[in-house]
Amino acid sequence: MTRSVISYKDGHVYEFAPEMEPLYTAEDGESITFETIDSLNKAVQSDADLMDAIPEEVNAATGPVAVEGATPGDILKVEIEDVRVNEDKGRVITAPGFGLLQDHEEIEHPATRVTEITNDGESLSFNDIEVPVEPVIGTIGVATSEETITTLTPHDHGGNLDTTDMSAGTTAYFPVFQEGAMLAMGDSKAAMADGEMCGTGSEIGTDIDVTVSVISDATVDLERPLVDTGDAWKTIASAETLEEAVKMANEDLIKLLAVEHGYTLTDAYLFSSLVGGLEISQVVDPLVTVRNSIPNEYLSDPL
Amino acid sequence: MTRSVISYKDGHVYEFAPEMEPLYTAEDGESITFETIDSLNKAVQSDADLMDAIPEEVNAATGPVAVEGATPGDILKVEIEDVRVNEDKGRVITAPGFGLLQDHEEIEHPATRVTEITNDGESLSFNDIEVPVEPVIGTIGVATSEETITTLTPHDHGGNLDTTDMSAGTTAYFPVFQEGAMLAMGDSKAAMADGEMCGTGSEIGTDIDVTVSVISDATVDLERPLVDTGDAWKTIASAETLEEAVKMANEDLIKLLAVEHGYTLTDAYLFSSLVGGLEISQVVDPLVTVRNSIPNEYLSDPL
Repeated sequence: MTRSVISYKDGHVYEFAPEMEPLYTAEDGESITFETIDSLNKAVQSDADLMDAIPEEVNAATGPVAVEGATPGDILKVEIEDVRVNEDKGRVITAPGFGLLQDHEEIEHPATRVTEITNDGESLSFNDIEVPVEPVIGTIGVATSEETITTLTPHDHGGNLDTTDMSAGTTAYFPVFQEGAMLAMGDSKAAMADGEMCGTGSEIGTDIDVTVSVISDATVDLERPLVDTGDAWKTIASAETLEEAVKMANEDLIKLLAVEHGYTLTDAYLFSSLVGGLEISQVVDPLVTVRNSIPNEYLSDPL
Repeated sequence: MTRSVISYKDGHVYEFAPEMEPLYTAEDGESITFETIDSLNKAVQSDADLMDAIPEEVNAATGPVAVEGATPGDILKVEIEDVRVNEDKGRVITAPGFGLLQDHEEIEHPATRVTEITNDGESLSFNDIEVPVEPVIGTIGVATSEETITTLTPHDHGGNLDTTDMSAGTTAYFPVFQEGAMLAMGDSKAAMADGEMCGTGSEIGTDIDVTVSVISDATVDLERPLVDTGDAWKTIASAETLEEAVKMANEDLIKLLAVEHGYTLTDAYLFSSLVGGLEISQVVDPLVTVRNSIPNEYLSDPL
């Protein structure tokens, strides 16, 4: 079976909403490719292209794709097989009112640095430094439960999670809130630090190979995104403050540990304080995002 | 030269202060061993030993040790060569009013789980699970600049940093605020998650081999602790909120990047958003602690 390619040129969204019109309907278990455009819609092609403000229409997410048989209460499984950059440069920027150090007097807002892809796609250049290309999907999610949420904001449906683990080799799980799930993704980076401090990574277009399937009989209710990187399971939570987000991520994790090991929540909580731990995804979006990681040897298959 | 052993039995402190009386004076470059007691002063020996509250005298730090020639404005370099557990069990606890999920109705406060050391010291047992022993120094620091700060609180002098990187193979750097620097440490864990969510790791006594030396001619001013794990340099910052702490850690990092690469702060900030990133040390102490990590290939020797 030929792999269908869904391109941003076919359709893309700037919002995740309860009602979304699918571009394509995939079978349960189908392998497809999402072609994405960089988060700034090609507006930045040189260091002279400055972002005086973050535009309203940012983070175009290619899709949505409906998945046959996905109904509310199910879990959508997205195996991320490959993420390939599809242009010869990325860009890292600051913009006024955006980023962790947006009030720092010595840091220019706006500023742009184009990062050329070099070494046959292996590296990118930042000034005189070469950095390995390790593509990350910044925005990935499904139709929401009730609210309409811009692709700049992360929430329980996913969205702008800006999580470095959303990369090749990871399997991501999302709660299904609407018929067909309605998967969309974009806002990729050629490289990104945990935290995404200046507000972006090296923003770039990518081609993303995934296989989508539906889990209808999970042993746990999934309220928020979850990933399996192959080394670790990680709960992912977004909230107004990091303090609130780390509580949510830890609560989600100890529920999974309790089910797998037959533990009380007390034991699961105590155990969670010994291995793996809290990680920061991003501190710059309208809600911030964190993870709680647990090595696979302690959580085999929580769903 | 025989390695001197400084034991908690010889002396320990519950506060880091501007004026501290040394137990021992080490030469610049001397290798010594700190013998530490677990953070709960041996009060918890079985699951029935519950902590109804965190005692005032907690986190005994063995020392302080003066280092010859250390004067304010210098940097104290502490090479952590080995951290060995010195008892046959650790303990992980909850206590009322303490820990990330202290208000969770289904989690018992207080609760204790003793974790026996097994496999010739290689593992610890939590219920039916074996976890690798990877000892961490929870509290490590020097005499403060002005305030007296309990060993339960982290700050610019170090103290209760609860940072998993404070382990064998790491070199830690502290600003020297007082003559002799006055190094003290304790509060070790046989294992600990990033975040230390329940409020402790597996608390345990340890013997810690370090070599201490003084850097008088550093190219940068060090305001807060810094570590070199061999893989990455990490700035460490403690503050009332995670939001404030991540700003401080990122600002500290971009200053180091700017010096090494001859970058403006704008370039250093943009670059910091591409590699390494923000990490959580602990979210449960009176001030919370985070790190900003940068792989060694991008920061060779910032001091």
